[in-house]
Amino acid sequence: MKAAIVRDKQFVVDEIPTPVPGPGQVLAKVRICGICGSDLHLFKHAEELLSTAEAAGMVIDKNSELILGHEFVAEVVAFGPDTEQRFNVGDRVCSIPFRKQGDQLLNIGTPAAQGAYAEYLLLTEEFLVPVPDALSDEAAALVEPLAVGVHAVAKSAITDSGSALVIGCGPIGLATIAILKMRGIEQIVASDYSPRRRGLAQQMGATLVVDPAEESPYQSFSDEPNGEFVVYECVGLPGLLKQIVDQVPKQAKIVMIGLCAGDDSYTPLTAMMKEVQIQFVYYYTPEEFSQSLEALSEGRVNWEPWVSSKINLDGVANAFRALQDPEREVKVLIEPFSK
Amino acid sequence: MKAAIVRDKQFVVDEIPTPVPGPGQVLAKVRICGICGSDLHLFKHAEELLSTAEAAGMVIDKNSELILGHEFVAEVVAFGPDTEQRFNVGDRVCSIPFRKQGDQLLNIGTPAAQGAYAEYLLLTEEFLVPVPDALSDEAAALVEPLAVGVHAVAKSAITDSGSALVIGCGPIGLATIAILKMRGIEQIVASDYSPRRRGLAQQMGATLVVDPAEESPYQSFSDEPNGEFVVYECVGLPGLLKQIVDQVPKQAKIVMIGLCAGDDSYTPLTAMMKEVQIQFVYYYTPEEFSQSLEALSEGRVNWEPWVSSKINLDGVANAFRALQDPEREVKVLIEPFSK
Repeated sequence: MKAAIVRDKQFVVDEIPTPVPGPGQVLAKVRICGICGSDLHLFKHAEELLSTAEAAGMVIDKNSELILGHEFVAEVVAFGPDTEQRFNVGDRVCSIPFRKQGDQLLNIGTPAAQGAYAEYLLLTEEFLVPVPDALSDEAAALVEPLAVGVHAVAKSAITDSGSALVIGCGPIGLATIAILKMRGIEQIVASDYSPRRRGLAQQMGATLVVDPAEESPYQSFSDEPNGEFVVYECVGLPGLLKQIVDQVPKQAKIVMIGLCAGDDSYTPLTAMMKEVQIQFVYYYTPEEFSQSLEALSEGRVNWEPWVSSKINLDGVANAFRALQDPEREVKVLIEPFSK
Repeated sequence: MKAAIVRDKQFVVDEIPTPVPGPGQVLAKVRICGICGSDLHLFKHAEELLSTAEAAGMVIDKNSELILGHEFVAEVVAFGPDTEQRFNVGDRVCSIPFRKQGDQLLNIGTPAAQGAYAEYLLLTEEFLVPVPDALSDEAAALVEPLAVGVHAVAKSAITDSGSALVIGCGPIGLATIAILKMRGIEQIVASDYSPRRRGLAQQMGATLVVDPAEESPYQSFSDEPNGEFVVYECVGLPGLLKQIVDQVPKQAKIVMIGLCAGDDSYTPLTAMMKEVQIQFVYYYTPEEFSQSLEALSEGRVNWEPWVSSKINLDGVANAFRALQDPEREVKVLIEPFSK
């Protein structure tokens, strides 16, 4: 099969053996796969991220080549041993990006388990979720990133009268905005340097968009210092937490969603005097993944503006470069079998 | 009046004019005042802490001399204008350590407002709380530090079945242990390098004490990885948050109570993969201050072991040195009128 493999910090499209499903696994044909911001981080900071991830308990397979991709829609092709075969060959499925291996859960699309920047991949049968016929591949590819927003908003425990500030309007910021909108949150301020992303934020449901180069996104909240105020950090750059802590009102909650490599610093005394709460979030539960699929199936999320382009495996290297420019790309979808 | 004043990073006992109560204020005679860990921080890191505190909104009076002390029991001596005179002269009172000045709330015992390392101080009448006759000065001096524990435990929202780890068994750690015990928390592990402080932790209600030089205080929790796990950071040193994040189980809550000057760093990816929550706490509410007084009045806190010695104003400089050694001192109480 063809795959876009990360070798020596470069993408190489190469033929490699199609994997063979083990016990409880299915072989799936990739119909479409989104490029995630965390893929960019992993491509750029692989060594740094991986040693931290390993220390925190992630299982890493150092002998296999790195194939990214965890936002996929695939078709069932073949069943391994010890499978229940609940699906038919050809059924469209998606899945939480984890693969069972004995007692371990491997993160698909990381050095733990090869991902969907390839023609085929292995999935664990019990995690498969059917994609309704009415849902397009493009929309279904957004189930995974939208689930991150479902989880972040749930973990933030924002109340109906709370005010939200979303910092960074890449795919995760947009997912968070979409879910806040769905939840009926009345004040959703979104901040991004990019005019295009601010426009998208508005389409997804932001009630006010701010260019942080021009004005402070915190200003709009100065009138209600006693209300609940939740900041969603969807960028993942060092220095940002410090900046947020310095600028939030007292009693603010800060939800950290953006992936940040290396160490980062902040000022504890300021955090203390404001009694801020910092909640880190990671992935989502299987239930939240299903809620995300449901929201997209029921047409409750205006997802079309997210998708900025579609490519095949040969376009991955270029897409990674283009994704550095927020004016050009937002969510790029890979169709491994398109010409 | 006599006061122990901080001049050029030294304590000088000097005669200064007795202050005159302004509108809504009373002049109070200090019966006793505890030395707080934050006083040690303020004495050592004054400039660093103050510029941060000022940036975060604390009002600083740069023209007045620094008199520390915010854990006091005092007697009403005289009333300023516009007071209700709800108390009689000679009544024993304590108070949240804030003084009203127009619309501002000044922190008593900081460069914002002179504190109780002196024979007299000014208090705001509406904040005064009567000290019941049955409560000794020594016990009443602990209302303030115990209130920090009341607040920290309340903000942590620990549930009855939660497990607690208290890092650092100085006065704030001991206050936190006492309140966790009062709340009926079954597993209270306390960690400190000092044998004396570990002994005190046990007297206050810790169910297990650990010397972190000998064994990991996190080990005792490895059996129940799915239970609620709350760490109370009662030390306030840079590097400690990073260490805690690296060692806690997934989904842990970390409550930051120790005052830490300057910037501090941690590893965001580890915090993220564990989905930790970090709650910073500062002071307490007036209701929590009253709850603390009530707990002491009702004899629900075994407070005697806390008090390690009593001194007068001339002993402050020595006490600050002695407090560096956790084997020697825990809570030192100043009696300005004792010989």
